[in-house]
Amino acid sequence: MDIERLKKQFGFILEIDKEKQIGRQTYLSDGARKENDAEHAWHMAVMAILLSEYANEKVDMLKTVAMLLTHDLVEIDAGDTYAYDEEGHKTKEAREARAADRIYGLLPEDQGQKLRKLWDEFEANETPEAKFAHAMDCVQPMMLNAASDWKSWEEHGVRCEQVMKRNERTGEGSKELWEYAYENFLLPGMEKGKLKKED
Amino acid sequence: MDIERLKKQFGFILEIDKEKQIGRQTYLSDGARKENDAEHAWHMAVMAILLSEYANEKVDMLKTVAMLLTHDLVEIDAGDTYAYDEEGHKTKEAREARAADRIYGLLPEDQGQKLRKLWDEFEANETPEAKFAHAMDCVQPMMLNAASDWKSWEEHGVRCEQVMKRNERTGEGSKELWEYAYENFLLPGMEKGKLKKED
Repeated sequence: MDIERLKKQFGFILEIDKEKQIGRQTYLSDGARKENDAEHAWHMAVMAILLSEYANEKVDMLKTVAMLLTHDLVEIDAGDTYAYDEEGHKTKEAREARAADRIYGLLPEDQGQKLRKLWDEFEANETPEAKFAHAMDCVQPMMLNAASDWKSWEEHGVRCEQVMKRNERTGEGSKELWEYAYENFLLPGMEKGKLKKED
Repeated sequence: MDIERLKKQFGFILEIDKEKQIGRQTYLSDGARKENDAEHAWHMAVMAILLSEYANEKVDMLKTVAMLLTHDLVEIDAGDTYAYDEEGHKTKEAREARAADRIYGLLPEDQGQKLRKLWDEFEANETPEAKFAHAMDCVQPMMLNAASDWKSWEEHGVRCEQVMKRNERTGEGSKELWEYAYENFLLPGMEKGKLKKED
């Protein structure tokens, strides 16, 4: 056994414990508190396994799950950039690329490169796995928003067109899930006036 | 598309959001607060992917990850039974079996049966996947305990022999990881007197 390799692996595994302290803007279903990145990643991974039958294209599920479990690790350094924070999105790419260098760099080189590639693939959003993972990343908070009476969207004054823009490619991962989410999580929020319609 | 099937799937996915509120006794690495079941499941799943090379036997990684992500769902109804709570362990099996019936029963029958089978397999601890998953379930909290200066074990007055008993089969999942954990997470805690040696 290569003890230096194992030490690096445990160094990374301990470091990523910090993802549990990276807050998101989405409330838990009962509205009691907001969720964090680790909880979100777990929730999406279980969702992906259960909803794989609705992916538009055949996906490698282990790859998709690994992508969902690790793609937010960059937020340990870069912080969570709220989907509807337009200022934050201007610097997001540069902040996250620096974070990826440091965090994936803690691992033995082969594994660091693998996770980095998986993250790049998620960001590029071109493969079936990346598209399905993006669908999970959009539908999971929509579901929780609806369950918590759209509390987070209301707090942030989120507008319909922002949600539609954010989701313009969700249907590329799963047409069926996007339609379900639109009907069940988005439309009722619009009808109840929880989502603002104009600037 | 079978809309009733999809509704059941989303009913389950929303219900399991509650796992984020099931507290465990292990502190985060910085000792700031205790972790919850969803965070623990996420952490173990990433660990399993990164440490698969140390499994004693070849494991199906997607199956192992699915097992790690879902096996604590029963605790939504049954609560977390602390590894060193001897009273709680007397009723754990019956409480968790009732919970499994209800929670996995929310899914379409085929998927509910699959997850139930996976949970039964984890509990029986006989297959390579179940043994490796158990190794993750033991090593992850040992790592966090060591990082947080063995705070949780000290608070609960945990004794060496309890930890050794709890880990008597950890090496069946991975001899190398058990040896590493013993040397790095357990032994220093004993030497510093954080783990009680006698009743």
